[in-house]
Amino acid sequence: MKLLIVNGPNLNLLGKREPSVYGSDTFEDMFVRLQKDFPETELKTMQSNVEGELINFLHQADDIYDGIILNAGAYTHTSVALGDAVKGIATPVVEVHLSNIFSREDFRHVSYIAPNCAGSIMGFGADSYWLAVSWFVKNKS
Amino acid sequence: MKLLIVNGPNLNLLGKREPSVYGSDTFEDMFVRLQKDFPETELKTMQSNVEGELINFLHQADDIYDGIILNAGAYTHTSVALGDAVKGIATPVVEVHLSNIFSREDFRHVSYIAPNCAGSIMGFGADSYWLAVSWFVKNKS
Amino acid sequence: MKLLIVNGPNLNLLGKREPSVYGSDTFEDMFVRLQKDFPETELKTMQSNVEGELINFLHQADDIYDGIILNAGAYTHTSVALGDAVKGIATPVVEVHLSNIFSREDFRHVSYIAPNCAGSIMGFGADSYWLAVSWFVKNKS
Amino acid sequence: MKLLIVNGPNLNLLGKREPSVYGSDTFEDMFVRLQKDFPETELKTMQSNVEGELINFLHQADDIYDGIILNAGAYTHTSVALGDAVKGIATPVVEVHLSNIFSREDFRHVSYIAPNCAGSIMGFGADSYWLAVSWFVKNKS
Amino acid sequence: MKLLIVNGPNLNLLGKREPSVYGSDTFEDMFVRLQKDFPETELKTMQSNVEGELINFLHQADDIYDGIILNAGAYTHTSVALGDAVKGIATPVVEVHLSNIFSREDFRHVSYIAPNCAGSIMGFGADSYWLAVSWFVKNKS
Amino acid sequence: MKLLIVNGPNLNLLGKREPSVYGSDTFEDMFVRLQKDFPETELKTMQSNVEGELINFLHQADDIYDGIILNAGAYTHTSVALGDAVKGIATPVVEVHLSNIFSREDFRHVSYIAPNCAGSIMGFGADSYWLAVSWFVKNKS
Amino acid sequence: MKLLIVNGPNLNLLGKREPSVYGSDTFEDMFVRLQKDFPETELKTMQSNVEGELINFLHQADDIYDGIILNAGAYTHTSVALGDAVKGIATPVVEVHLSNIFSREDFRHVSYIAPNCAGSIMGFGADSYWLAVSWFVKNKS
Amino acid sequence: MKLLIVNGPNLNLLGKREPSVYGSDTFEDMFVRLQKDFPETELKTMQSNVEGELINFLHQADDIYDGIILNAGAYTHTSVALGDAVKGIATPVVEVHLSNIFSREDFRHVSYIAPNCAGSIMGFGADSYWLAVSWFVKNKS
Amino acid sequence: MKLLIVNGPNLNLLGKREPSVYGSDTFEDMFVRLQKDFPETELKTMQSNVEGELINFLHQADDIYDGIILNAGAYTHTSVALGDAVKGIATPVVEVHLSNIFSREDFRHVSYIAPNCAGSIMGFGADSYWLAVSWFVKNKS
Amino acid sequence: MKLLIVNGPNLNLLGKREPSVYGSDTFEDMFVRLQKDFPETELKTMQSNVEGELINFLHQADDIYDGIILNAGAYTHTSVALGDAVKGIATPVVEVHLSNIFSREDFRHVSYIAPNCAGSIMGFGADSYWLAVSWFVKNKS
Amino acid sequence: MKLLIVNGPNLNLLGKREPSVYGSDTFEDMFVRLQKDFPETELKTMQSNVEGELINFLHQADDIYDGIILNAGAYTHTSVALGDAVKGIATPVVEVHLSNIFSREDFRHVSYIAPNCAGSIMGFGADSYWLAVSWFVKNKS
Amino acid sequence: MKLLIVNGPNLNLLGKREPSVYGSDTFEDMFVRLQKDFPETELKTMQSNVEGELINFLHQADDIYDGIILNAGAYTHTSVALGDAVKGIATPVVEVHLSNIFSREDFRHVSYIAPNCAGSIMGFGADSYWLAVSWFVKNKS
Repeated sequence: MKLLIVNGPNLNLLGKREPSVYGSDTFEDMFVRLQKDFPETELKTMQSNVEGELINFLHQADDIYDGIILNAGAYTHTSVALGDAVKGIATPVVEVHLSNIFSREDFRHVSYIAPNCAGSIMGFGADSYWLAVSWFVKNKS
Repeated sequence: MKLLIVNGPNLNLLGKREPSVYGSDTFEDMFVRLQKDFPETELKTMQSNVEGELINFLHQADDIYDGIILNAGAYTHTSVALGDAVKGIATPVVEVHLSNIFSREDFRHVSYIAPNCAGSIMGFGADSYWLAVSWFVKNKS
Repeated sequence: MKLLIVNGPNLNLLGKREPSVYGSDTFEDMFVRLQKDFPETELKTMQSNVEGELINFLHQADDIYDGIILNAGAYTHTSVALGDAVKGIATPVVEVHLSNIFSREDFRHVSYIAPNCAGSIMGFGADSYWLAVSWFVKNKS
Repeated sequence: MKLLIVNGPNLNLLGKREPSVYGSDTFEDMFVRLQKDFPETELKTMQSNVEGELINFLHQADDIYDGIILNAGAYTHTSVALGDAVKGIATPVVEVHLSNIFSREDFRHVSYIAPNCAGSIMGFGADSYWLAVSWFVKNKS
Repeated sequence: MKLLIVNGPNLNLLGKREPSVYGSDTFEDMFVRLQKDFPETELKTMQSNVEGELINFLHQADDIYDGIILNAGAYTHTSVALGDAVKGIATPVVEVHLSNIFSREDFRHVSYIAPNCAGSIMGFGADSYWLAVSWFVKNKS
Repeated sequence: MKLLIVNGPNLNLLGKREPSVYGSDTFEDMFVRLQKDFPETELKTMQSNVEGELINFLHQADDIYDGIILNAGAYTHTSVALGDAVKGIATPVVEVHLSNIFSREDFRHVSYIAPNCAGSIMGFGADSYWLAVSWFVKNKS
Repeated sequence: MKLLIVNGPNLNLLGKREPSVYGSDTFEDMFVRLQKDFPETELKTMQSNVEGELINFLHQADDIYDGIILNAGAYTHTSVALGDAVKGIATPVVEVHLSNIFSREDFRHVSYIAPNCAGSIMGFGADSYWLAVSWFVKNKS
Repeated sequence: MKLLIVNGPNLNLLGKREPSVYGSDTFEDMFVRLQKDFPETELKTMQSNVEGELINFLHQADDIYDGIILNAGAYTHTSVALGDAVKGIATPVVEVHLSNIFSREDFRHVSYIAPNCAGSIMGFGADSYWLAVSWFVKNKS
Repeated sequence: MKLLIVNGPNLNLLGKREPSVYGSDTFEDMFVRLQKDFPETELKTMQSNVEGELINFLHQADDIYDGIILNAGAYTHTSVALGDAVKGIATPVVEVHLSNIFSREDFRHVSYIAPNCAGSIMGFGADSYWLAVSWFVKNKS
Repeated sequence: MKLLIVNGPNLNLLGKREPSVYGSDTFEDMFVRLQKDFPETELKTMQSNVEGELINFLHQADDIYDGIILNAGAYTHTSVALGDAVKGIATPVVEVHLSNIFSREDFRHVSYIAPNCAGSIMGFGADSYWLAVSWFVKNKS
Repeated sequence: MKLLIVNGPNLNLLGKREPSVYGSDTFEDMFVRLQKDFPETELKTMQSNVEGELINFLHQADDIYDGIILNAGAYTHTSVALGDAVKGIATPVVEVHLSNIFSREDFRHVSYIAPNCAGSIMGFGADSYWLAVSWFVKNKS
Repeated sequence: MKLLIVNGPNLNLLGKREPSVYGSDTFEDMFVRLQKDFPETELKTMQSNVEGELINFLHQADDIYDGIILNAGAYTHTSVALGDAVKGIATPVVEVHLSNIFSREDFRHVSYIAPNCAGSIMGFGADSYWLAVSWFVKNKS
């Protein structure tokens, strides 16, 4: 099974940015552990700070991957276009967040991504990704 | 490891109520499969349609269980008191929902439970419970 | 035909509480007259101040009664869970109110019960119940 | 007893317009059945798509009819003037709706008519009129 | 000088409707006194309960009258079209109200008429008309 | 092909009212040019300042015309009833506006007409009508 | 008859501040004309930029003047305290404004003063004061 | 004099839950001190996490106690039904809160209880109860 | 112990203004009784209708008094500056109100003072002051 | 005449994404037909999922094309920057949408593009483009 | 060049009030440094806690000073009157704030002062004043 | 000292776009003057219309520059992601705007950038940049 992890804006700063909120691991650290936890799953990851490139990633991944794990970062709360992209492709998408969006500022309490996803997982830190992969492994393999 | 699954209002109707939204399995069906999937974990489940009894369940479970999985149903969106109960106990609580609250009516887009939980999982149907148990097993055993 | 009348919070105070708004009859007075007006209909009534017990009443009445007449009192305006319970059962429910919810405070202008009911009747005092029974008698017998 | 039924905008399309919502009966069909159900009551009906003509109907009916049954259609949700007209006359008015206004779009969840009416009946289709007449017959004859 | 007084919905009920708010004089009573107070001014009055007829009155009065006194009643708070009509004619319009719109329900605190008027006078009962005429006499004769 | 152009409140003032916004042509001028541009199409036009008469025009035009071009003027933003009328008839309706409703006051940014129309054209002045006719000619002939 | 004119913040700038909105007369110019127009009325005027001093003026004027004409300027829209002061005294108060508050910014569309006044007059420039005096002369002498 | 102290949801956790906000005393500690401070007053206390049981407590206490001290906890902000219960009984109720509801989250800034109470006391910790008892002792003995 | 009572706008009218809401006692009457009830406490009182003078009172009282009792009247609901003043001084401040702010108009349901106070007491009439003094005496002496 | 058609996010999925809403044609299919319908007009098309690239397209097209047809997709509802770009160039822009934005979710009822466009056309499917080209051909050639 | 620095409510507490937000310098300390940094500029400073006195300062400074630097403190967010005063004078005003109003409570995110100022500078602590003086020196000398 | 000036969407149009609002200088003109005014400071500038590229600029500038001056243009009001980027880097960022955001449309009154900046400067045209550089020079060299 092939899964694509798509990370959105500022997630390339992980381990550096606001460690009290997001922890001190880089995403590369997380990814290495994740691949080790799921050795039979082919994991790939892409990151962009550009909303439209995230849309491109989703379009291009369609029919190539068995599933997409999307952490849209701050675009979660503002991007109608990204939500439309999730809706527009056939590959199932799971929304993940490191922190719980409901325990942060009011303007982060909305998700334009969620309504079109297979499901949402938030607040577990790096384990949010681990849970998303687990679900794909359980259901799609 | 001992985990308590707390189900809120109308979840006793599962398999009967709005099957197009929630599926045709009863929660008992789900629970049996779940226990089979995690044979080494001691699972228990309680359900009530009474908001205050759910609060009581949480209070009483504190220090007895290693973790609580809470599907607060419609009280998710209206119960400040239940959110306070989650905050008031030491045992970690994971919020689960069968459907994605963002793809339903506007008044279901808010969660008073989420800010005080270890994490939230929604939209995966019965797998929302499975993922929550998986997380406890991975982290707490 | 068997009909169940379910009364919500504070309706046990009828005849005592705010008589200028609700009149000086107790619900028992009303019920006696109602049974007399519909001698061929088997009427039963339950009351609770507990939101979750009202949900239980609805669940238990399903398939036993031919219809339910629900005056949810103040829970009308706050209980998503009670509205879900109405939706979750097969027995038709008619919503009644003694006063017209639109002529009272703003926070009483919404009904979470109404969208799932066969119909709503409000503002006629005790006659709201009489009209609800009339409708069941006309259509269900 | 003489009762006037006043129908508002687009109700002349009944039986043709959105039959999945309103049924396939014309109002004339309903009226004939209604008169047959209440042979001793003198029923009359007027319809207009003009907000101000509905106000005129109410003014003119005052002191001539024993009661008025008003289905203000879409003006229910926008016409402060029509609500004032109901308040300005002495004849009791009962508000009726074929569908339940709370199960439709948000902008239909308000009624400027209700606060000044003897009561409101909604969601029972043609039976909403039948119930309104029943109430007048019970109380005013 | 020729002035037209245009009265909107339900003002034909004056003296009958809610006398505690509006007093017990009919508008005819007021008009007779007004004409007596301003014997050199040619006063005319029109009333309609139909929003569009009020618009017609304004259109037709343009260039014929030296000024218009408009009590738009409840349409004040809902009629964008009537406000546009005031804007669309050259004859100056003075807005009057018997009661003060700010001491009534919230939905009466807005005026779509005011922004396009020469001025607004409210709360003085019949004297609101008297003041409006006074202003035209002072400035336009 | 027969098309009906229905114009709403204050459009009879075109050429006179706020020429800086709407231009100095009367609608008659526009109509003559339009008929000349589409000599093979039978065009007819009706105007009223009365909301309910516009509803009547739509009802009566149903099945007689091949299409309706509706400029509802200010009723666009306030008339739920007119929107219902568009929904209630079978003849396709195209919404037109001379100016772009989004570049005017906030209360003009909503259209109760649009959701039920075949399409909406706004901001092109007299050409809004020309485009609407063009569309009918292209598709319905 | 003795009348007090109370002017609020920035009205001492009249004739200097935003002449396109308020005209080029100082209030002193207006006052002289006003006294000349009403030679038999004893007029006095006070101005302050301090909200609390305006409250003091009202308290002190009570029982001394036959009426008060209050142009509260910007405090109209923000001062609950000034509105309470109007309510707290026995002398009738008439609210005046030079411009029409509904044709300015949204935050000027509310008046905390109006609900407690005998009436409100706005938009007539200096004539707003003239009309207020006229009303007192007509009714209180 | 007999006073009943009614405590709402999660107040049984006092001394354990969020001690930085609520202090480390249990309510039992507080109650003992309170009874010692008012030896001549007969104090009794009840607690429930169930909204409807709190309503029952109030109904049953009516005519038995001289006064009720109600800390409704989180139900303060959501329970229209509990506010109705306070209104429906004759015994005076004083609302108390340990913390000041205005210094917490926005959704805690409203009280459905307050409008029907003899008074409200908040923010003094355990002294909020002490003040409430003091008031009853001063006025009702 | 020295306590300062600071009264805000219109409280100098007490006993005169709206006696049905505030009672017929002047504040001087209340103050005399209060001093008699607490003979060992040095009470002083200041009043102003000027928001900024109330701020000055608070600044000047800091370090001189052991506590401040503040009835900010209508400024409670509008004065961010006064709330900042309470926050800016070291002397503890108790907020009092004669009536319960939640049982009056919507715009009185907010307090900018409360979040920075030691506690709030409202609705007990003159006893609100008595309770505030009692608390200081209990805790600060 | 040279016209540029600029398509925004997800419009490259046309024919694939939500065909029940947008039809099964790809934009390439539409474009070929469009060029055939207007053989004398030089049409060019660009698409991007990146908001800023759409802004670049507009900047670069200025002074090169005679007109721009912009379907901004989901950026219509969120992009203040794109609206500014339309305002910042001299070439006239016509806004088009395949579906009617008022018949979709609430957050799609706003357009930041419209106020700066020559006009807006929505709801006609591929014909929205055809109408936009027609307008340019009629007016700009 | 002569510049006036006007400080609003509670700024006399600087160095004492909330030092973690505003630093431990008094404004006098800041002012001495500022005068030293700009020896050729004649600086003067005024402070008041009274909204209306700040208005008076602005009126009186007009035509006397070359520029005004206004830190309106909490009145920034509530005083329409102060904003009008800035608009009403000819001398340019620069708005300054020690902290960034957008990083504090929601009710501080608005400025009634800003729209009428030459510019706004916020968040730089004492340097906000330094920057404002720098700008006047660069442009006005 | 090395400073980076980052300009957002449409600022490449400066001197061309809406000159009445932004002046007729290009940013290159401004930049040349700015470098001349601060000859000892190494200034560099980057511009992009792509939100994500602005984020990239900030990430890449971290630890390379001593300070960043950010004019985020329209993204100021919509980009949560850009605000997060400012928060995620260590280099201090000063927000600048040519015009005052509070004197433009309502949707420009919010800044997602400001809360994470060292300070904000707006409304001074090109001098906003000059002031920002001045501040860095004063504090960071």
